Order: sequence, then structure tokens, then C-alpha cells
Amino acid sequence: MSLPEEFHEIAERVNNWGRWGADDEIGTLNLVTGEVVREAARCVRSGRRVPLALPLKQDGVQTGVTPGRVNPLHVMVQLNQELFGPGTVACSDDAVTMGLQAGTHWDALPHVSHSGRLYNGRPAAGVTAHGGAAFSGIDKARHLVSRGVLLDVARARGVDRLEGGHAVTPEDLDAAEELAGTRVRAGDVVLVRTGQMRVYLAGDAHGYAYPSPGLSVRTPEWFHARDVAAVANDTLTFEVFPPEIEGLWLAVHALDLVEMGMPQGQNWNLEELSTACGQEGRYAFLLSATPEPFVGATGAPVAPVAVL
Amino acid sequence: MSLPEEFHEIAERVNNWGRWGADDEIGTLNLVTGEVVREAARCVRSGRRVPLALPLKQDGVQTGVTPGRVNPLHVMVQLNQELFGPGTVACSDDAVTMGLQAGTHWDALPHVSHSGRLYNGRPAAGVTAHGGAAFSGIDKARHLVSRGVLLDVARARGVDRLEGGHAVTPEDLDAAEELAGTRVRAGDVVLVRTGQMRVYLAGDAHGYAYPSPGLSVRTPEWFHARDVAAVANDTLTFEVFPPEIEGLWLAVHALDLVEMGMPQGQNWNLEELSTACGQEGRYAFLLSATPEPFVGATGAPVAPVAVL
Amino acid sequence: MSLPEEFHEIAERVNNWGRWGADDEIGTLNLVTGEVVREAARCVRSGRRVPLALPLKQDGVQTGVTPGRVNPLHVMVQLNQELFGPGTVACSDDAVTMGLQAGTHWDALPHVSHSGRLYNGRPAAGVTAHGGAAFSGIDKARHLVSRGVLLDVARARGVDRLEGGHAVTPEDLDAAEELAGTRVRAGDVVLVRTGQMRVYLAGDAHGYAYPSPGLSVRTPEWFHARDVAAVANDTLTFEVFPPEIEGLWLAVHALDLVEMGMPQGQNWNLEELSTACGQEGRYAFLLSATPEPFVGATGAPVAPVAVL
Amino acid sequence: MSLPEEFHEIAERVNNWGRWGADDEIGTLNLVTGEVVREAARCVRSGRRVPLALPLKQDGVQTGVTPGRVNPLHVMVQLNQELFGPGTVACSDDAVTMGLQAGTHWDALPHVSHSGRLYNGRPAAGVTAHGGAAFSGIDKARHLVSRGVLLDVARARGVDRLEGGHAVTPEDLDAAEELAGTRVRAGDVVLVRTGQMRVYLAGDAHGYAYPSPGLSVRTPEWFHARDVAAVANDTLTFEVFPPEIEGLWLAVHALDLVEMGMPQGQNWNLEELSTACGQEGRYAFLLSATPEPFVGATGAPVAPVAVL
Repeated sequence: MSLPEEFHEIAERVNNWGRWGADDEIGTLNLVTGEVVREAARCVRSGRRVPLALPLKQDGVQTGVTPGRVNPLHVMVQLNQELFGPGTVACSDDAVTMGLQAGTHWDALPHVSHSGRLYNGRPAAGVTAHGGAAFSGIDKARHLVSRGVLLDVARARGVDRLEGGHAVTPEDLDAAEELAGTRVRAGDVVLVRTGQMRVYLAGDAHGYAYPSPGLSVRTPEWFHARDVAAVANDTLTFEVFPPEIEGLWLAVHALDLVEMGMPQGQNWNLEELSTACGQEGRYAFLLSATPEPFVGATGAPVAPVAVL
Repeated sequence: MSLPEEFHEIAERVNNWGRWGADDEIGTLNLVTGEVVREAARCVRSGRRVPLALPLKQDGVQTGVTPGRVNPLHVMVQLNQELFGPGTVACSDDAVTMGLQAGTHWDALPHVSHSGRLYNGRPAAGVTAHGGAAFSGIDKARHLVSRGVLLDVARARGVDRLEGGHAVTPEDLDAAEELAGTRVRAGDVVLVRTGQMRVYLAGDAHGYAYPSPGLSVRTPEWFHARDVAAVANDTLTFEVFPPEIEGLWLAVHALDLVEMGMPQGQNWNLEELSTACGQEGRYAFLLSATPEPFVGATGAPVAPVAVL
Repeated sequence: MSLPEEFHEIAERVNNWGRWGADDEIGTLNLVTGEVVREAARCVRSGRRVPLALPLKQDGVQTGVTPGRVNPLHVMVQLNQELFGPGTVACSDDAVTMGLQAGTHWDALPHVSHSGRLYNGRPAAGVTAHGGAAFSGIDKARHLVSRGVLLDVARARGVDRLEGGHAVTPEDLDAAEELAGTRVRAGDVVLVRTGQMRVYLAGDAHGYAYPSPGLSVRTPEWFHARDVAAVANDTLTFEVFPPEIEGLWLAVHALDLVEMGMPQGQNWNLEELSTACGQEGRYAFLLSATPEPFVGATGAPVAPVAVL
Repeated sequence: MSLPEEFHEIAERVNNWGRWGADDEIGTLNLVTGEVVREAARCVRSGRRVPLALPLKQDGVQTGVTPGRVNPLHVMVQLNQELFGPGTVACSDDAVTMGLQAGTHWDALPHVSHSGRLYNGRPAAGVTAHGGAAFSGIDKARHLVSRGVLLDVARARGVDRLEGGHAVTPEDLDAAEELAGTRVRAGDVVLVRTGQMRVYLAGDAHGYAYPSPGLSVRTPEWFHARDVAAVANDTLTFEVFPPEIEGLWLAVHALDLVEMGMPQGQNWNLEELSTACGQEGRYAFLLSATPEPFVGATGAPVAPVAVL
């Protein structure tokens, strides 16, 4: 089976290969300029900080469906250990084993490939067991601070959460943008709230995973038109699951990551942010969301904070 | 052996137990107010972002001396895997095993105990193999965005790096503060540069670890007087190693973490920041440094970014 | 709550503390003498070998109920990597993260404690985060080869498997011994088949875990009377679950491991062995079941083989 | 670069592809018949058991040279945890992260490939990040009990250990076989002692690794002529390191694993066995050495025991 014609047509319209040079490894993160960051800083009015990461723990959002993507196994390797002898200061130390895409994370551009290609036309074979991704690894991002805009689609539609299987369309984004009262601009990081996180927070990890609302295959063009730097949401799958077009799995991933070169964020907890934005009547803020710089990784945990 | 009288005298002077209530779990992070954050945002002038985390990789700063504190073992659990059948979009996924204090990290308050006590008088036994720290785990921080001030002690002393074993004194901090041209205030996060990171960056992990310059046992009083929220530096040990007072190991850890309730950061790469601050002629910035929220962890990786 | 009087009465009857000296760390494994091993070798008639370990894989028997006891996460750290340059011999290498008690394993004696004590009266505090068990760690076993006897309780009772919650009694063991046609002797390793493994093999890991048939609190006296070296069975819990006496959890563990100093094996797949023994009409064999020698571990994976 | 003509000539002479059918996945392990095992059992005279595995611990034989092949990180995930409430029986539980080839282990046949091929002509691409080896994974062995023969080359040459870089030749094997007083036969597992383990046991892991004595590229023909089932030795590299023919790295691995389909064992501690065989004046025994059955793994830990 191969990807349908419709996919390739969209792909052509959103493709950014070569836009920042043949050697570029960071795609739309190039759009975050000093001016964008200065504008982000100007969004800070109350100084209120809202964390967007889920707690990292063994009963996280993973249910075992994706092989190898394990919830964090946090262990103590020292417990009040008097390393320098009895009566001395005692140390506790921790270690962890986890899937880098297990909790709140960014997908790096090489997280997916299609037709043997990664972002900027690089060969998929450039991702190896030995060293991970030879290009566009998550560490190449270096930093990710920009203006963040919450597009609260659930609120714009007047619901607590979108139904499982609801595809968030460009029209949904338009409505949420209108609610936000600010126009999404080049270099912004867009956070799309579906409310799906409530399912996990209520204790149902399986229901959270599937079926899931998420982004429609039509949204990459919207993000491309606005030249956003990155998009994150509050679902496990990012895109609607099951997909809109039967058999066309992970089309949004392929369009965003491979064609546009735009990082995606998943499992972001946008509930407290939704409340805060509602209270303050504004949906733009300074967003700080630098991924942990795992060398060659195709994704990484992030502890994002919105500063209002 | 027990801790010397001198230690207990300093401890009494810097102790913050009960200051924010008997139930407080975050200590000096209470000092980061909305006003401090607004002031931090006002420090953003150029929009230049400087990442302060070391890359996470298997040949990181750990040398095997601290049992269990292992460098990241980054592995690919999927490699261009066509999860939904041949010809479909292919996924790559990663996992990691690592010491939470292995790379650039924050120590949480329960990282050390002395005399059976943690910060705020909690029993050391509250840290268990089963659940980690029952109080003051790193996840309790929730967010850490504040004004950052670089105290470039190496530059203030006119050297590339302080010698191994050099104890950074309050006088060193005063001199670096004068160079910085700003007074350290309540709620600030202070970054102390010794230049020791150059040893690791030059390829010598063992030389980086020991002997190391670091903070003197006299510095907690300086930080306490200024009411800083947190302190990080560019060494493995944070405090001078070997210690100033023979046999008094980890005294600074005990004073900062247990007595003051002030988080410490280690293995921060301050080289690029030193260059940037020198170029821009200012040493204060918005610092975003939220630790990964591992539940009950006594430390966590962080990917800090200074925004100038 | 404390353990009931009934428990302490049995404990007194099966206690082996001091029997092999105050410094002994291996308990009933002392009973495996050269003569026992020679006798075991004499049991080899057909040379047929039957493996008793479950495959180690991510969808193993663990369901997430026991914190930290994770199924194996097997990863490739090298994939046909030409370590010495293009065209050279290529290597593949693996790593794993797993609970040591996750699959087919032996419990070491310090796997449980009660009333603050481990086997031979050692303090429970001798098990630490730093080094594991200071005494009786699984590595102290060094080797475990002996005569094995299958007590096929399910077959003796004429069923495929005992019902969940069925407590295997001394009378059950007597009946199975009669079926086996050999008397259990000092130094033997007894394998008790309940048939419960069939539930897991049929794909139901949760049903396998609970409710489970298993050994009655009355069996330690039976094993003590025969002076067996070790006992393993084909369940997750070893003892009947839920327990026979309400609130008396893990009583069999405490009696076997702490009082008698007798290792226990769990998650052994005895199905093929049951078939083989039935076909050959004999239930005694050479059993080779040396645990992986993790230093200080309170349990370890084992790949047991019965040689008939 | 490609493999030299000399390599291909030997490869042709030792090749076993198709010998046990096109679908065979276990190669020379087919040679371990019931008769071989009965003969092994007849070797048991004293009942003395000698363990051959190194303890599994963080300061194991790995030095960090082979990426991803990490020494065991053994951690306690529960420490005397009263899972069912205060006063109940308390549990301790362990977990580990380790390279499967880190300690005493077997290489599975797909551990190496050359010219894009694995044993029996299978494509090297059959080893994937997702599932490991699709054929000949270590779990396919199921069991490994056979007659073991110690070829004590160091003793036969009258030295404590062979020098680093000494290539063990067929003539060395002949001499050791004469010392052993038994002829190596089809289905035997041969243990070749170089004495190199003494370097590690004396505390020098780096010296143990390199330079290392090991098997000559001429030995596969010797093993092939005798039709042995498997070969293990007491070195990290198995074959002599650096190699005999400049630039011809891992030739013995390629010949044994890919061409012959014969498993290799490394890091076996043969010191105690050497002493025992010397004392008993016989070098043949029952060897039990079933690898841990990691599904699809290209190697696995083993806790071998020789029963004399």
C-alpha cells in the first residue's frame, strides 16, 4: 500500500524542504526570531506561571499499546546514604527508565518518515540503533521559547471536551482564534486544547488513548499559512484517531514533521492553562518549552510553562 | 562522627524551617512572585536565547564514581517502523535509562538529609524505595521561571576557570555581582560560573569531577541574606571538592537543601551564557528552568534557557 | 496490625535459624549435597531436556499491579553496526530493563522480611537501596543443580488446572507424590504444578495473576519435614491468592523465606514438563536452575531445565 | 573494504547453511542429542558443582568502549515494603538495566552478520529495533545442557595466563585436549581457558579487555571438524584482540556465528573450574548453560554450571 494522492497534494502545498537551506535541521523553529521572543516577553503581565507537563510516574498515559514506549520507572539508587561515613550528610539519588515519547513531549522531525524520507529530504536510514537520528535530532532545537497561543477549541465549541474521533478542522482553529482575541503569527507556538486530557485525569488511560479527538489532515495547511513554529495538544495521538481517511494512518504526523519540518507536542496538560486564560481573558503568553537535549533522539520529554 | 559545631552555627543562621508554614514543600521557591517574574520578562531585550543544558548522551559527565548515577543510555525502540502496514508512515521511538542527577539537573530538597532530617524538619525516612520522596519531591516545584543573574566569578577574577579546589567565597560573589552591574534580589536564580565546565568540554570528565572549584561553606549565608530562590553552577559537585574543612563533606548541600530549603543546580553549561552576557554587557535575564516533574524524585533533569 | 498467633506457631516449627551456623546465608540450599547431585544425574535416562522458563518479552506476566516489577523492555543498542568500518563484520547488541522478579525467577531469602527480620535473624535493614541485600543475596546461591521432582497436583486431582483460590494442601502434595512414584527427599527441588500457567498462555495475564491457586500456609511444614532444598510453581503469587486466612498476606513467603530459609520459584512453566513426565511415566529428573548472580539481589531470573 | 579472500576460503570450509534444513534457526545446537546428554550425565561422579558466571554488578567487565553494552544497574524498587499495611509481611523487589552481552553470556547466531547475511543465509535486515532478531534469537535455543570439556590452554602451556594478543591455535587446542584426556566429540560444548579472566579478577577491567588472548581465525575449522555444539571462553572478545590479520576484525565471530551457526560464550570465569578439573584429574563434565530466553535477542546472560 502507498499513501493516497490526496496526501501528496497536501504535502506539496505545505512542503518546506530547502526553505532554510539544504543543511537545515530545525525546520519551522527557524521562524522563532528575536523579535518573536521580545513580543512573547511583552505578553507577560501578571507573571502567573502555568505548568503544562504531566507528572512523570509509573501510571502515566501509556497503556502498553505502543511497544517500547514505557511509562517512567522511577527508582531510588541511593536512600539517605552516608557516602562519606556514619554521621555524615546523607544522599538520595534517582534513576529512571522511560520512553522519551511516553509523557509530555515533543516529537522531533525524524520521529516519522514516509516514502523513505525525513524532513528536508534526508534518508530515513539516517536514523539508526547506534546513534539515533543523524540529523534533526531533538537536541538540534537547542531552545524553544516563543509566544504561545492557546487555541481552546473545546471552549470555542462550548464543550468540556471534544468527542473521541472528532477531527479538529481549520474552521475549529479559526473559531478558537477568534475566542483567543489574537491572530496567530509567524513563529508562534500553538497549543490546541481538545479537553481530551480530562479523560486521563479522571483515571481512564485507555479511554484517553482511543478514540481520540485530534487534528485533521486539513490543519497542516492552516499552520503552514500562519507559519507557526510548533503545535502541541492535549492528546496521545496528536491527530484524530482513528483517522479521517480509512487506512491513512499518521498523515498529520507525516505532513507536519516530514513535509513542513514542524515539531509536534503531545500529552500536554492544557486544563489549568485553559482556566487561567479564561480568567485573565487573554490567550497569548510567553511559552518556554525546551526539550531535554537527548542527542539524536526522535523525541524528548519537556516541562513546558506558560507565563501570562 | 557527627557534624562540627561550626556547621550547626551556620545552619541556625540560614534555617528557613517553618518560614512558609509547617506544610511547605518548596522552600525558597516561594520567593518567586508574580512581580519577580514580571521583572524577569522586562530583562528580555534582544530576545537572544542561550541554552544551558549539556547534551544528554552516553559519554556524559558521569565517570562511574557515584553508584547508580549513570549517564544516559539512549536507545531506539522503533526504527522507521511501519506500524500500520507496508508503505504506511513509519515511526521511530526512543527510550532512555539514566540517573536523574546525571547531567544538567536540579537537586530537590530531599536530595540530602542530615541528622535524620530533611527540609522543614521532615524525617529522612520519608524518602523510600517505593515512592521516592513523600514530600518536597522535584515535582512539587511545578514551574521555575524567574530572573536569572549570572555571577561570573571566573571572569571577575580574570581567569578562564577557577582552579580545582578553589572555594568560591562571599567576596567572590560580591565581585562578580559588581561585574554584573545588578544587585541580586529576592526570588532571583543565581548562576555561579567557575569555568570548570571547560574541563569537561575539553574531553576530561575525570578532571571535571575532581578536584573541583565550587561554593564555599560560607556562601549559604550570602544567598540567605539576598533571599535567592535557587543557585546553580557549572560543576559536578556544586560545592568545592575536596571540602574546605577536612571531613566535612557536602556541608553546602546540607545547608542549602536541608536548612534553607533552596534548590541547587549542577552541571549547567554557562560558557555560552558568559560570552553572551559579556557581549551584551548585562548579566540579568529571564531564566526558564522548570525541572522534569518526576513524582517524588530527589532531583531531575532540566533544560534551562536564559532569554536576554 | 501484627501477624496472628497461628503464624508464629507454624514459624516456630519450621524455623531453621542457626541450623547451618549463625553466618549461613543460603538456608536449605545447604541440603543439596554431592550425593544428591549424583542421584540427580542418575535420573537422566532419555536425555530429554525440558525448559521451564517463560520467554522474556514485553508482554510478559506482569500487569502493572506490583510497582516497579516491570516486564522486560528488550532493546537493540546496535543493529548490524559495522564497528570497524564499512564492509567489515557487523554487530547487533541488546540491552534490557526488567524487574528481576518479573518472569520466571527465584526469590532470594531476603525478598521478604517480617517483624524486622530476615532469614537467620538478620535485620531487615540489611537490605538497602545502595547495595541491595547485604546477606543472602541471590548471588550467594552460586549454583542450583539437584534432583527435581514434579508434584503434579492438577493431574493428581484430575483437572487441567486448579481453580483460582484453591489452596494446595499437604494432602494434595501427598497425592501428587504418590502419582509421581518417588518419595521427596532431603535436597530435592520440588516443582508444584497447579496448571494456572495455562491461563497466561491462553493470553489472560490478569486472570493468571488473580485469583490464583497456590500453596497453603500448611505446606511449609510439609516441605520442612522432607527437608527440600527449594520449591517452585507455576503461579505469579506462589501461595494461594487471596490468602486462606483473611488479612494474612504472604504468610507462606514469610515461612519459607524468612523462617525456613528456603528459596521459592514463581512463574515456572510446567506444562511441557507435565506432558513429558506423563509420557515417560516418571516425575524425577536432574534439575538445573541456577539463578543469574545479581549481587545483593532479592530475586533473579532463572532459565531452569529439567533433564529426564 | 570487503573481507579478504582468506576469510572466504575458510568460510566455505566451515559453512553449515542448509545442513539442518533451510528453516533451521539453531545451527550446531542440533548436535546435542539425547545420547550426548546421557553421556554428559555419566560424567557426573563427585557431584561437585562449579559456577562459571561472573557476579552481575555495576563494576562488571564493561569499560564503556562498546556503546550501549552497559554493566548491570541493579536497583531496589521496593525495600521491606509492607504492601498490605503496617505490620504485615514486607517485600523487597529489584530491577535491572543491562547490556545482554555485558557479563557472562552467549552470543546468539544473529549477533553478527557479514556481507548482509546471517546464519543460514538469512538477511541481516531480519534484525530490527522493533522486535530484535526475527530468526535465531537466543530464545530459540530453548535449553543448553550437554557434555562440557575444558580445554585448559593456559595450563597446557604451563602458564597462569596467555599473553594479551596470543592467538589460540588448533595446535593449542590439541595440546589442551591431550591434557584433558578425552577426545572432543560431536555435541560437546568446549570451554577454552586462556587465564585472561585473572586480569579482571585482579581489578583491571581495561587490561582484561585489551589486548586479549583469544581464538585464532584457524580454530573454526578445528571446531567444525569435531562438530562441537558451542564454544565459550574467559575473555571479553572471544577471539584474539587485536586480530591476527590486520584489519580483519571479528573474523572468528563471522565464521562461528554466521557460517557454522555455532554459539559463542564470553566472559566465562573458568578459574575455579580449572582448579577443580586439575584436582579431580578429569576435564569432562555435565554442563548446564541455558541462556535467559529473551525473545529475539542476539545474546543473553547465562549462569553456567559445570557438574563434575
